[in-house]
Amino acid sequence: MEAALLRELAQGVRAGDADDAGAAEVFARSAWSLVSEPGDGMAGLLVGCLGAVPALEAVIARRPADMLAREILSVAGDVALPEPADLEEQVRHALERWRPRLASAEVVTALRQARRVTARLLIPGDPEWPEGVDDLGPHAPLALWCRGEDRALAALGRSIALVGARAASGYGEHLAMEASAGLVDRGFAIVSGAAYGIDGMAHRAALASRGSTVAFLAGGVDRFYPAAHDALLTRIVESGAVLSELPCGAAPTKWRFLQRNRLIAAASQATVVLEAGWRSGSLNTAGHAAALGRPLGAVPGPVTSPTSAGCHRLIREYQAECVTNAAEMAELVGPVMDAGAGQPTLFDASGPTSDQVRVLDALSTRSSRSIKDIAARSGMSPFAVRGALGALELEGTVAERATGWVRASRTSR
Amino acid sequence: MEAALLRELAQGVRAGDADDAGAAEVFARSAWSLVSEPGDGMAGLLVGCLGAVPALEAVIARRPADMLAREILSVAGDVALPEPADLEEQVRHALERWRPRLASAEVVTALRQARRVTARLLIPGDPEWPEGVDDLGPHAPLALWCRGEDRALAALGRSIALVGARAASGYGEHLAMEASAGLVDRGFAIVSGAAYGIDGMAHRAALASRGSTVAFLAGGVDRFYPAAHDALLTRIVESGAVLSELPCGAAPTKWRFLQRNRLIAAASQATVVLEAGWRSGSLNTAGHAAALGRPLGAVPGPVTSPTSAGCHRLIREYQAECVTNAAEMAELVGPVMDAGAGQPTLFDASGPTSDQVRVLDALSTRSSRSIKDIAARSGMSPFAVRGALGALELEGTVAERATGWVRASRTSR
Repeated sequence: MEAALLRELAQGVRAGDADDAGAAEVFARSAWSLVSEPGDGMAGLLVGCLGAVPALEAVIARRPADMLAREILSVAGDVALPEPADLEEQVRHALERWRPRLASAEVVTALRQARRVTARLLIPGDPEWPEGVDDLGPHAPLALWCRGEDRALAALGRSIALVGARAASGYGEHLAMEASAGLVDRGFAIVSGAAYGIDGMAHRAALASRGSTVAFLAGGVDRFYPAAHDALLTRIVESGAVLSELPCGAAPTKWRFLQRNRLIAAASQATVVLEAGWRSGSLNTAGHAAALGRPLGAVPGPVTSPTSAGCHRLIREYQAECVTNAAEMAELVGPVMDAGAGQPTLFDASGPTSDQVRVLDALSTRSSRSIKDIAARSGMSPFAVRGALGALELEGTVAERATGWVRASRTSR
Repeated sequence: MEAALLRELAQGVRAGDADDAGAAEVFARSAWSLVSEPGDGMAGLLVGCLGAVPALEAVIARRPADMLAREILSVAGDVALPEPADLEEQVRHALERWRPRLASAEVVTALRQARRVTARLLIPGDPEWPEGVDDLGPHAPLALWCRGEDRALAALGRSIALVGARAASGYGEHLAMEASAGLVDRGFAIVSGAAYGIDGMAHRAALASRGSTVAFLAGGVDRFYPAAHDALLTRIVESGAVLSELPCGAAPTKWRFLQRNRLIAAASQATVVLEAGWRSGSLNTAGHAAALGRPLGAVPGPVTSPTSAGCHRLIREYQAECVTNAAEMAELVGPVMDAGAGQPTLFDASGPTSDQVRVLDALSTRSSRSIKDIAARSGMSPFAVRGALGALELEGTVAERATGWVRASRTSR
């Protein structure tokens, strides 16, 4: 392809000028996002080993699978790889699935459509690139299409994903609103998937709180899905960011929703499931977070509510942390430093001591009692009774009369 | 005291004849339950080392603290004890708290009152003695007063404590009813404290399901507390059992409620908190269960409900298991053996494979598509497409037409 066309296409989707090598890289990564489906580990491996441009050229030139496998083996270094024969077989299958999609006209169309909607192409190494997704290894996205603000991308460094059921209950929507607003107040960006229910409410509350919010889509960023969230996504573009690894024109499919979930989990520091049925798709996002070693939280709800069953399942079976408010969600990312106090205890240390409880049990608000009487009633020694009474007198809980001790009535304090 | 009187008193509260030694033991343990408050570790230590009768005689004879400490040290064996000087000091304090309560007339009164309400005295080693409480060590009860059926005591060997807030919500009462009935169906006895709210509902549902239920009281078994549960406790006596370590005539005090909770936790195989405020007394029962190493469960609820805050606290801070139904509560005691299947997974193995999802995404119910077209749309190799189509065709999910493949519409299957 002509260098001039490549430069023109690159300039449409990148800030600043691109040199010829840069323009070729933009074209190649765009092409890769068209020929391989999201999460294609072999595409990630080949691009990682050879580079996006040489890898694409190898596919176009119909380089044989055995040769490509040898090239991978010679540069892969300490990357865990299958046995050479298996690798060659996998490369062969990959070439078979990529070749039917090779069509440079479609790449050009996607890049022009991106320019039309002012979508930019992010590639690994860009300052705006969300570093978290690199933890996906060979399954990391090869490029990301972005509409929105750079500062929303920078805010991903301190972000929490709020996900949950599309068919959320009123309880779930309330949770999403409280959680999103509370996390924004604590300086977090809110990551979600722009779906109906929990996702939409999480984005909306973040916008209403003037926080950063980032939506990952399962199709191209030129066509918002679901269509009814067009206005919401337009508002997210204005102050946050809408991202996708799929080129403009790509339709969302079930597979792409599942793969999109891995980006939500990887781009944020922790994932919280607010409401989810027993087989909710948000459990898939939770599974990705757990696989990445990201902290995972789930909000409990009534055990009688099917839309909380998935959350309880995550707590019971997948060691998700039980989180009940925004403060606890924030703690998933790191301990709160201002707490100061030690571990809380079931036996409240600030309340009365055992001896004091027993002395109070033995006192009356009406008739005064002697130390000896209190000792007999409480089953304590007179010495211990005197000690407890002294502390309680300081608090004003008991009082000494001429005839003995009484418990101060609440109204008299 | 005369041997004849001792025998008469013992016969009033024991099944069968008692010899002189047995009668003295009954009297001494009754006396100990009057002079020491529940959970008095020094009383437990002294009775454990010397025996109930010699220990009582030593207190009556005003044996000095240093001599008693030496006696304890000479027989304690491998029991963990404080330094000799500290032990002597603790014995001195204990003698000071026991002596003001020494009054054999009160023991006689308590035993006669027990006979009047047909309460029996259980002592450690009796066949009906609930073995679980022995795990409390020196804090184990020295005797238990019982009204009810022996078979309910035997049923404690497979029992779960259901506890929770007095001020239960409708949600909490529903949980208590479902949990109690479900556990009775699984062969468990229900242990609780006969309080308002969760406790009462747990007992009631167990009775309604014709199950065994045992109530532990914080005062004597001759006066039921709370008074409004008199009819309920009378029904529990008829088919279950009501137990207390306090002699007849003893009033419930706050201290005794806290100590009663340790018996509920110790007598049952697991404790489940159904609903509890942030500082609910039932957290104290949970703390005892945890300290004893008994399995502890808590039922989640709406995070907006203050009566579930204690349950979430137990799950978050005290490693309580999140349990949502009777089956999961039963699992606390031991794994259910009929499950058969392995660990469940977030990625449901019985659903379509990844390839199948992608092929289905690429198909239409209306227009038929070629293998090559499906390969391009799904980003898969034609070989893999054929494999997935084959499996889906067997399921009837896809069909081959003269012009290619279609997705079977739901109505046509």
